[in-house]
Amino acid sequence: MATKLKTVQFWYEFASPYSYLAAMRVNEVAVAYEVRVDWKPFLLGPVFKQQGLNDSPFNVFKAKGAYMWRDMERICNELDIGFKKPSVFPQNGLLAARLALCDEVRPKRVEFSQGVYLMQFVMGYDISNFVNLHSVLENLGLNSKKAFAQSQSNEVKLALRNQTQWAMENGIFGAPMFVCGDGELFWGHDRLEQAVAWGAGSGHKG
Amino acid sequence: MATKLKTVQFWYEFASPYSYLAAMRVNEVAVAYEVRVDWKPFLLGPVFKQQGLNDSPFNVFKAKGAYMWRDMERICNELDIGFKKPSVFPQNGLLAARLALCDEVRPKRVEFSQGVYLMQFVMGYDISNFVNLHSVLENLGLNSKKAFAQSQSNEVKLALRNQTQWAMENGIFGAPMFVCGDGELFWGHDRLEQAVAWGAGSGHKG
Repeated sequence: MATKLKTVQFWYEFASPYSYLAAMRVNEVAVAYEVRVDWKPFLLGPVFKQQGLNDSPFNVFKAKGAYMWRDMERICNELDIGFKKPSVFPQNGLLAARLALCDEVRPKRVEFSQGVYLMQFVMGYDISNFVNLHSVLENLGLNSKKAFAQSQSNEVKLALRNQTQWAMENGIFGAPMFVCGDGELFWGHDRLEQAVAWGAGSGHKG
Repeated sequence: MATKLKTVQFWYEFASPYSYLAAMRVNEVAVAYEVRVDWKPFLLGPVFKQQGLNDSPFNVFKAKGAYMWRDMERICNELDIGFKKPSVFPQNGLLAARLALCDEVRPKRVEFSQGVYLMQFVMGYDISNFVNLHSVLENLGLNSKKAFAQSQSNEVKLALRNQTQWAMENGIFGAPMFVCGDGELFWGHDRLEQAVAWGAGSGHKG
């Protein structure tokens, strides 16, 4: 008898370094716990603006930013995944986020998102650039012309706006954020395992 | 033959919730790794001020604050240690930090610091109150009259100022922060194990 898998929402912003780490690992961890992951791209820009910040906290708070880049380097080294600090930070993830929500991309949202992250944080390329995104799409066998057209539709623009609005109204103040079925939030790549365990119902309940 | 133990500095602020968690666990973890912990009380107020914040980030950024209190509740439940949200946050940890640096308290700095945290985050008492600090000191068999007198000396005031200044000049932007012998920083209770492992020389080197 098939049982319905429990779901953990994975909220990610394409420009977010720690979201990159989580994106590369979350599905693997979820499989071990028999949890389904719902990938939710959103924009941090409006979230930070609501907090009174006009830039990434990693730029506003210099020491925190310096720590983060060193920390990324250490973690990627430990996980043995590539890392290159992008020349511009934060990058503009608007187009990538819209693409991720398109019908053409949806069936491969995970692979597309991981591809965008690798392009940004391993190769150091610009993720707001059409040509770069085109190559990610085409590598996955997706119709990039169709995807770009859909990404500019009012429907997709509104979907991303609604998603970001939902995040702000539900306590999501940064990324990555994991939202469990019972509404529990877990913030940061540090909490990936704990979030998935909780979502599976095997975490301690507070 | 006696070998010199490696040291990890543990930088903590008395008003910081995640510092409480780290303070209750760091020595136990360090023993397992044969690492010595150097307890460094400092003040976050001047650090936040330098960042342009006039209050704790947990108050400035409401959603982040709400998350933190729920997170504290979950973690304390999981670790099976007490937790009560203090009625005032952040509390004024100036006097406690000065006391921790006194000659009279130094030999029992760990126990004193843990006592102050328990008073604040388990009992919900005010840690800027003389009477409450007096009871922590006396319970440890310390001479509270002597300790209070020392805490008001220019020497102790300057020591705390210098400690906080060192923190700001060395990339410490929050608490708890762990500083390893090679200068590597690890931020947050989440990173306690990783920091101690690194400090012991058994962490991966980036």
